[in-house]
Amino acid sequence: MKFEIMRDRLLDGLSDVMKAISQKVAIPILTGIKIEVNDTGITMTGSDSDITICTFIPAEEDGEQIIRIVEKGSIVLQARVFSEIVRKLPTNDVTIEVANGLQTKIQSGKSDFHLIGLDAEDYPVLPVVKDEYSFSLPSDLMKSIIRETVFAVSQQETRPVLTGVHWEANERGLSCVATDSHRLARRLTMPEEMPAVPFSVVIPGKSLQELNKILPENTEPVEIVIADQQVLFKTRNVLFYSRLLEGNYPDTSRLIPIEYKTTVIVNGRLLLQAIDRASLLAREERNNIVRFSADEGKVIEISSNSPEVGKVEELVEAIGVTGEDLKLSFSAKYMMDALKAIDGQDVSIQFAGAMRPFILKSVEDDSILQLILPVRTY
Amino acid sequence: MKFEIMRDRLLDGLSDVMKAISQKVAIPILTGIKIEVNDTGITMTGSDSDITICTFIPAEEDGEQIIRIVEKGSIVLQARVFSEIVRKLPTNDVTIEVANGLQTKIQSGKSDFHLIGLDAEDYPVLPVVKDEYSFSLPSDLMKSIIRETVFAVSQQETRPVLTGVHWEANERGLSCVATDSHRLARRLTMPEEMPAVPFSVVIPGKSLQELNKILPENTEPVEIVIADQQVLFKTRNVLFYSRLLEGNYPDTSRLIPIEYKTTVIVNGRLLLQAIDRASLLAREERNNIVRFSADEGKVIEISSNSPEVGKVEELVEAIGVTGEDLKLSFSAKYMMDALKAIDGQDVSIQFAGAMRPFILKSVEDDSILQLILPVRTY
Repeated sequence: MKFEIMRDRLLDGLSDVMKAISQKVAIPILTGIKIEVNDTGITMTGSDSDITICTFIPAEEDGEQIIRIVEKGSIVLQARVFSEIVRKLPTNDVTIEVANGLQTKIQSGKSDFHLIGLDAEDYPVLPVVKDEYSFSLPSDLMKSIIRETVFAVSQQETRPVLTGVHWEANERGLSCVATDSHRLARRLTMPEEMPAVPFSVVIPGKSLQELNKILPENTEPVEIVIADQQVLFKTRNVLFYSRLLEGNYPDTSRLIPIEYKTTVIVNGRLLLQAIDRASLLAREERNNIVRFSADEGKVIEISSNSPEVGKVEELVEAIGVTGEDLKLSFSAKYMMDALKAIDGQDVSIQFAGAMRPFILKSVEDDSILQLILPVRTY
Repeated sequence: MKFEIMRDRLLDGLSDVMKAISQKVAIPILTGIKIEVNDTGITMTGSDSDITICTFIPAEEDGEQIIRIVEKGSIVLQARVFSEIVRKLPTNDVTIEVANGLQTKIQSGKSDFHLIGLDAEDYPVLPVVKDEYSFSLPSDLMKSIIRETVFAVSQQETRPVLTGVHWEANERGLSCVATDSHRLARRLTMPEEMPAVPFSVVIPGKSLQELNKILPENTEPVEIVIADQQVLFKTRNVLFYSRLLEGNYPDTSRLIPIEYKTTVIVNGRLLLQAIDRASLLAREERNNIVRFSADEGKVIEISSNSPEVGKVEELVEAIGVTGEDLKLSFSAKYMMDALKAIDGQDVSIQFAGAMRPFILKSVEDDSILQLILPVRTY
């Protein structure tokens, strides 16, 4: 195996693959990156068993030569050392060559590295994913969907299925739901191209977070292929595999109240900032609960009281308050997460009573729904 | 106590004082900031017993009113909560008022905080520092002196005096020396205005690091006042007190060789980058030792060999090599620290033999000297 490559392009590819690398893996070879060279370019693969990322660098792109391939072949190199070396090489021209079995020479300017590689034959094979259930979404929409839901997954392993986001597709569109049983985030969308067959899968939250870091902020399509125990996200040069979570996802539709007693319309950004401040004292006592009250006066009051630290009162002018007067308490963190997902637009908050879940939506757009369970303090 | 102040100015002052605040203090009141208001402005004080920082915000500056003082007085507020609150207040106009004993109201826009303060009478009094032994240095020179020496202090408490930098002044100027007994950094300077009486003190490295964060990158004078157990650094609006370390600092002048066998002149930045790369593999095995060889061929070779990871060889073109051929090994970290202190200029490295300390200086400037002890591997 021997090739010459532009360092910057190698680095770009490496930085994607590194997102799958963990130092805590059961199979030692997975601390390495597999590099495969053929006539069309090089493929690098990293994996922690749960997530596998393959990135392809073409030998030629838009008529420009990126890689000069001298000899085909493959090797596995220690991921952390290899990426550190590439990052610090002195020139943009890098030659990588496997000689004497597994000895790998990395050469750039007057720098000469010899790494001891591992046999690529010993690297686990990629999961086989059939292309049957596939559809596609624009990359930026995919990123929004992830950002609007993934924060609400459970951080606890007591019910593993809740650590994932439930993706369900049928003739009514794609629904993505995350809940940790104290709050819920739901995003509905109607992709232009839907899968031919309905599906229902649970994708680990961690996988979606890593995927979000790799996806570009543009409208290029991401192809999504659903298989039995795997999901594969394909962009032009990257394949991102994730295992799926087993188990039945709970039916969350019944959590969402049907009737509401109070509706508050308010600027999301102003409310977010007021809650952020109001929770400063609550955080000191580690409960992070703030009180919320609204009445026909259109002024929302957010308050918090920590006997040892002090108290705070924030007033926020609402755009509208309709229905019954309301007092309730909730986790400032959950409310801030929900408001961030709706992203600074005017929000409509609908309450079904002080001890019933309440929901937040953008006034402009029904596709994002955030639900929060209040806590009892009043 | 009551005053109105511009939030940004309050924040600037707070961010200086916060550098003295630690959550691990023996005296609970030191988790707070003392605020004192008089006719001329407000003074804030923070301390962790070792370091005390006082910052003054004038009521008026250059004809502009910064503070409207309504009533004089003083209070101690929890430092972390108070600074978080100020940072997040919604408008630039802040009113702070102590009412009902220690209840402190912080008000801005429609935000209303009530913090429970502590009695300022219970706050420790400032150290008394007589102005006898004082001199001054421009702020940017002071920052350079700190940056060029403080990294070499010992990180271990076995010989506490080595955790500080030795400042010694006499008719020949000011000498600042730090050593952890494996390497040494020395900075000589001849201030325009010298103290009337010679002095020799050891200033804790940690204090100098915090001081460096506060000092501005300009030529405004910093007055340095040396007292028995304290040193005080004064800028226009900030007083920075540090305790001094007790004990005799070792005589380091005898460590510096008088005769040299090999002299290498090389670009500091190129050498730094080569050593950084060469140490990538050494770091994996945690010893971080690289080999260095130079001969009349004017090419320096830096190499490292880690049996399980691989090996690396870096070549650096020297500007000149005179004297005996040389092979030795040293800590890559120490060498990189020393080269960073000399800051990218061409450096002269003088060797007295493979097992004797060697020194680095800028070729342009004798005032910085870095000394490193080699390790035995060849």
